[in-house]
Amino acid sequence: MIAVLAGGVGAARMLAGLVQIVPPTEITAVVNTGDDLVLHGLHISPDLDTVTYTLAGAINPETGWGLAGETWQAMASLARYGGVTWFGLGDQDLGTHLYRTQRLHEGADLATVTAEIAAAWGLALRLLPVTNDALRTRVTVEGEGEVGFQEYFVERRHSVTVSSVRFEGAESTRPAPGVLDALVAATTVVIAPSNPIVSIGPLLAVPGVRDAVEARRDDVVAVSPIIAGAALKGPADRLLTELGHEASVVGVARLYAPLAATLVIDEADTDLATAVEAEGVRCVVAPTIMSGPAEAAALASVVINSTSRS
Amino acid sequence: MIAVLAGGVGAARMLAGLVQIVPPTEITAVVNTGDDLVLHGLHISPDLDTVTYTLAGAINPETGWGLAGETWQAMASLARYGGVTWFGLGDQDLGTHLYRTQRLHEGADLATVTAEIAAAWGLALRLLPVTNDALRTRVTVEGEGEVGFQEYFVERRHSVTVSSVRFEGAESTRPAPGVLDALVAATTVVIAPSNPIVSIGPLLAVPGVRDAVEARRDDVVAVSPIIAGAALKGPADRLLTELGHEASVVGVARLYAPLAATLVIDEADTDLATAVEAEGVRCVVAPTIMSGPAEAAALASVVINSTSRS
Repeated sequence: MIAVLAGGVGAARMLAGLVQIVPPTEITAVVNTGDDLVLHGLHISPDLDTVTYTLAGAINPETGWGLAGETWQAMASLARYGGVTWFGLGDQDLGTHLYRTQRLHEGADLATVTAEIAAAWGLALRLLPVTNDALRTRVTVEGEGEVGFQEYFVERRHSVTVSSVRFEGAESTRPAPGVLDALVAATTVVIAPSNPIVSIGPLLAVPGVRDAVEARRDDVVAVSPIIAGAALKGPADRLLTELGHEASVVGVARLYAPLAATLVIDEADTDLATAVEAEGVRCVVAPTIMSGPAEAAALASVVINSTSRS
Repeated sequence: MIAVLAGGVGAARMLAGLVQIVPPTEITAVVNTGDDLVLHGLHISPDLDTVTYTLAGAINPETGWGLAGETWQAMASLARYGGVTWFGLGDQDLGTHLYRTQRLHEGADLATVTAEIAAAWGLALRLLPVTNDALRTRVTVEGEGEVGFQEYFVERRHSVTVSSVRFEGAESTRPAPGVLDALVAATTVVIAPSNPIVSIGPLLAVPGVRDAVEARRDDVVAVSPIIAGAALKGPADRLLTELGHEASVVGVARLYAPLAATLVIDEADTDLATAVEAEGVRCVVAPTIMSGPAEAAALASVVINSTSRS
């Protein structure tokens, strides 16, 4: 059994690699819900959907989110009214949010609905929201005050300076059923190459999750989302710096050292391997840019063969 | 000033006739919201939308509801999940519901949002929901028990036997701002050819509305939705019979006599004019089938020239 702590795009690609080399039924992805939002009355779970659509082979390859071949009639109509259109919702994608919202209104919990959606796409891996409870990443933007995560990430295109991040409601959440079990049962726990602050951070903020990961430290392998000082996608590098961390594999090692015995870094950072190990983690150097399925599978193979015990 | 008590399709056509012969800014439509529903988390107001889309010239002429040239990607996606698809929501139409729901979540009332939507479509008449408060038509279906209006009307295609109808929450509603004023100020109050039970009934169930209409009885003109014993569309004939009324212009006259001094009936019912007047209402005979804009304008002209005072 493999457990994967997952954010959005990077995690989705990592999982797409893993399912090629491990039977999907042996994989549990524990997915960030701090990005979730209620907009237009709809419950939207961007990271869960990115993982689902990616694994279903239905993701829009150009954006990394949303569905391929999407149409935008509803958004065009919403624009006529001067509605909130900065968060783009394609017509097919809306079907997912309509379904999720209706099921939640009916009393189903998010994990149940997530499993139903994954099954509808034919996915065999287990996809779990980290919690069924409300967890909302909030970002303090310099000169503006606190905004919701998507207001920061999408509406402001993360091109603003962040002075703090918090996970609203985290202390009242419980891990979704199966999350802690998956962390206990896994032979390897993978921290996907997601944003350490705003993708992995919310997972660790759910009471019990950080402890469960730390308890498995020897078997935890993190993949650095930072390559040569930069994030492939998104604001991880900038956020790390703004919040007082180092935007490098060494900074990532420092953050993850209490959790992961092993850090996989990209070949571009080979010269930092010693500095990484100085943070107290084993350093594995490999190509980490998942430009296609083959590269993702190769990285997945490195990851599951690189725990400190192997 | 003209005030129109309005349901969906029949009322929309009546209004499309009226705006041709009266300046639209002098028309207030008071629209049924008993049909409203929350589905997939979205607030849907079918009658308001039917009136809006019809007056905007954007209605699907084949169905009488929804938008012309509509696409159905979101519903197809929802069907993948086995979601609730019996209430069809086209992609463009969804934009309307997204907008309405978001604005209501933001704290706007339904009347405000309705005015915004009407303005976005360039409508100059005043469109008012009868109430900003929750009013839900509930239907007791024989052998099944009570269901929501749309579960009766759309999901069961109104092809079931109804034993009673009630307007849940009506006693706690207040007329939306402007509704009573419009009824007081109107030179003519029109009861559109809508279903007397489930379209006009909810309007009259809002405290104050029935009294306000009765107070204007001399200037109230109703148009019979029953022609030759049948409804042009929908279950009005069947409902009238099932609930102990007569599915004829005489039955309509009996229902509306306390409210309207005048009833317009179709030429097909000329032979019932005397029986209608025996119910205590003036009877005006005219072509009432609004097969196109010209016919609608002609009927509108008959209506506003047929109050008992004219």
